[in-house]
Amino acid sequence: MLKVLDEKRVQKLKEEICEANLELVAKKLVIYTWGNVSGIDREADLVVIKPSGVPYDKLKPEMMVVLDLEGNIIEGNYNPSSDTPTHLELYREFENIGGVVHTHSTYATAWAQAKRKIDCYGTTHSDYFYNEIPCTPELTPEEIGGDYESNTGRVIVRTMRDKDYISVPGILVANHGPFTWGKDAHEAVHNSVVLEELAKMASLTIAINKDITQIQEVLMDKHYLRKHGKNATYGQ
Amino acid sequence: MLKVLDEKRVQKLKEEICEANLELVAKKLVIYTWGNVSGIDREADLVVIKPSGVPYDKLKPEMMVVLDLEGNIIEGNYNPSSDTPTHLELYREFENIGGVVHTHSTYATAWAQAKRKIDCYGTTHSDYFYNEIPCTPELTPEEIGGDYESNTGRVIVRTMRDKDYISVPGILVANHGPFTWGKDAHEAVHNSVVLEELAKMASLTIAINKDITQIQEVLMDKHYLRKHGKNATYGQ
Amino acid sequence: MLKVLDEKRVQKLKEEICEANLELVAKKLVIYTWGNVSGIDREADLVVIKPSGVPYDKLKPEMMVVLDLEGNIIEGNYNPSSDTPTHLELYREFENIGGVVHTHSTYATAWAQAKRKIDCYGTTHSDYFYNEIPCTPELTPEEIGGDYESNTGRVIVRTMRDKDYISVPGILVANHGPFTWGKDAHEAVHNSVVLEELAKMASLTIAINKDITQIQEVLMDKHYLRKHGKNATYGQ
Amino acid sequence: MLKVLDEKRVQKLKEEICEANLELVAKKLVIYTWGNVSGIDREADLVVIKPSGVPYDKLKPEMMVVLDLEGNIIEGNYNPSSDTPTHLELYREFENIGGVVHTHSTYATAWAQAKRKIDCYGTTHSDYFYNEIPCTPELTPEEIGGDYESNTGRVIVRTMRDKDYISVPGILVANHGPFTWGKDAHEAVHNSVVLEELAKMASLTIAINKDITQIQEVLMDKHYLRKHGKNATYGQ
Repeated sequence: MLKVLDEKRVQKLKEEICEANLELVAKKLVIYTWGNVSGIDREADLVVIKPSGVPYDKLKPEMMVVLDLEGNIIEGNYNPSSDTPTHLELYREFENIGGVVHTHSTYATAWAQAKRKIDCYGTTHSDYFYNEIPCTPELTPEEIGGDYESNTGRVIVRTMRDKDYISVPGILVANHGPFTWGKDAHEAVHNSVVLEELAKMASLTIAINKDITQIQEVLMDKHYLRKHGKNATYGQ
Repeated sequence: MLKVLDEKRVQKLKEEICEANLELVAKKLVIYTWGNVSGIDREADLVVIKPSGVPYDKLKPEMMVVLDLEGNIIEGNYNPSSDTPTHLELYREFENIGGVVHTHSTYATAWAQAKRKIDCYGTTHSDYFYNEIPCTPELTPEEIGGDYESNTGRVIVRTMRDKDYISVPGILVANHGPFTWGKDAHEAVHNSVVLEELAKMASLTIAINKDITQIQEVLMDKHYLRKHGKNATYGQ
Repeated sequence: MLKVLDEKRVQKLKEEICEANLELVAKKLVIYTWGNVSGIDREADLVVIKPSGVPYDKLKPEMMVVLDLEGNIIEGNYNPSSDTPTHLELYREFENIGGVVHTHSTYATAWAQAKRKIDCYGTTHSDYFYNEIPCTPELTPEEIGGDYESNTGRVIVRTMRDKDYISVPGILVANHGPFTWGKDAHEAVHNSVVLEELAKMASLTIAINKDITQIQEVLMDKHYLRKHGKNATYGQ
Repeated sequence: MLKVLDEKRVQKLKEEICEANLELVAKKLVIYTWGNVSGIDREADLVVIKPSGVPYDKLKPEMMVVLDLEGNIIEGNYNPSSDTPTHLELYREFENIGGVVHTHSTYATAWAQAKRKIDCYGTTHSDYFYNEIPCTPELTPEEIGGDYESNTGRVIVRTMRDKDYISVPGILVANHGPFTWGKDAHEAVHNSVVLEELAKMASLTIAINKDITQIQEVLMDKHYLRKHGKNATYGQ
């Protein structure tokens, strides 16, 4: 299939991705260079991502790096974020996503470091994530020593295999931190903000009641389906 | 009894409710659209509530939705908040309240998720809430599958049956989050701010001393009655 | 002994006390009206204190209330803070203090609610408080039912009897919250800020190592005496 | 070897150190005067450090104190920070560092008070610190009673003896708080910010999973070497 590169569309995506990266700072999910957002133009199969090592207060749309799905740089004067191969893996496997976010936000990272999935303890959680937020297994020494960043993407995909990536728009990578995704970069950032807040609420919940378990599935259904899918009644 | 609709009074209430919703943001009780405030005009039996799904930074008084106590929309171009039936239930049963607030504020929601009432551990608590802040039982699958939002209101009313809703101006809905009320929307927001702070203090208190129990009832009396009721000595 | 009222000095004290009350807000120790600062003019034995129930954003120097040490109002159009008798008790007993602060700051209040003294776990603590920060016993039902606010002052004084109020410039009132003092209102506020931070650090310390005990007394001496007393080497 | 004093270079260093001290406030690592930053001019062996007891909002470059490595004051109208002998000890022993920072930042200080090293629970940690962040043993009564501030430096140096101070750019002094260093003052401040965030994440991690252990060494290698050393691929 012939893919068409449209300069205006790419320009718009670079602006959107720059803005989404800055949104991570505004929402206090990152300090220094601890996060990155990308977006994809599905018609041209081009991914736009934050450059590596540039501080957020210097970030401009023209610094964004444009790559194809194999990781070849199409445009850009900077190196792409070192996590780029992870983003690409997710775009290749999750066909309906348009944006990916990685951060080291405090609470979500603490759960990832604790290597513990976040069970669904309330309706705030089930408004966004259907059932638990999974945590990947650890990478093996071979996966770490090999193509580490791609293997990080692969362990995410493997962990999501029995789940629906639309209703579970994020995951914890063990020992590392959260990745989220969405229909575009803006929604992926929104999901990162939500995941961080859910992680904070969950850490408080298990401290207040150490025997707490997940909410009933019928309540998850009610809240998730009230906001998502063709029978959604939420919003206008 | 004939109820009189007074356009100026409704207009004023819409401004007040819009402002009270924005106060939730200023007090850091909500992110995105995670909360809603309503108020009632008791002379006309009209409820004014936040529209559904509109972000706080776009909220304007003219977007507020006006309903009667049965939930019929009297005025407004937006859908009312999806939690509206819960608010209506509270207005029908608690005759002397003028405002209702629902949020997913972090600490109060954590207690609701932990399904644990907040015992009265100090005078900050008893300055506002007489005795414990209750937590509802979980809704049954039938209540969730049926008229869920109204049933949320009904479980609140049922849990409050043996309590005085004036001296206990808020509750935790199990698995969900806090609801508060007051003589008007402004006071209901004030009570939400206080509840969040009490929830935070209580979570710290039980971590510092896991064997802590409630304060003496005579101390609750002293503080609650110093600020409330006909013998109040507090303020001017 | 004849005490002399000096209008200019009282005016200056009212400005200082108003400013010190607003400092509580700036340092995030209080919300709404949850705190109060007073100061004393020792030459005239006049106490200046925050009015009761006035929100901080409306506070002006001319609203401050002037009382003698028996609690008679000498000047002012507002009622004094309801905690005034506690402040007066401290001024009568601790002859060298010039300012008193009461807040419901989150972490210090949590320790007061937990009815647990704050042991000295580090040099930050011993830079300001020599040895533990005490927690009073609970008031008896008789003390609560009687002259409650004065009795709160008395239990503080009783608990401090075997301690030096200069090197222990604050205390936790069980079930209630912290009181601090200092050579003037400004220093008393400074001590409230420090106490809150020490309370936060201590709650984290005992969570990280539940078997932790106080630091060596020789280290307390080193830090406390480096900053205080006639052999202090700290500052200019 | 003859050391050359270059007035312009010293002036520039004073500006840099003043700015680095103010950065501690901006990053919320210090309140009041609870921290200090220094830098060294290795060509002249001159150390520039914050004056003692001056509040941050009054700090100006011309107030910085210039000393030689033995602690003799070369220039300045203020006393140097009381922690100066600790800084000097580090400059004498760690030949390749250019800046030192000491703070009482909340979470790092809590770990120091808990007398517990921070194990490496994730890649955020290993991006900056290779393996654990050590905690010194307590000083002996003799070390405290003697040349306390120099002995604080010596216990740091002793604890670092079997470690590489380049890949472990910071430490917890038991009962006291963190010290960090770097190639210049700016990097040392950066490392203090990172250490505080790692300390917060670690305290949450051990609360979420009390049995958590360090990450695999191969993963530490991957992340640390991706950002540091001659084979670094991170940034531009």
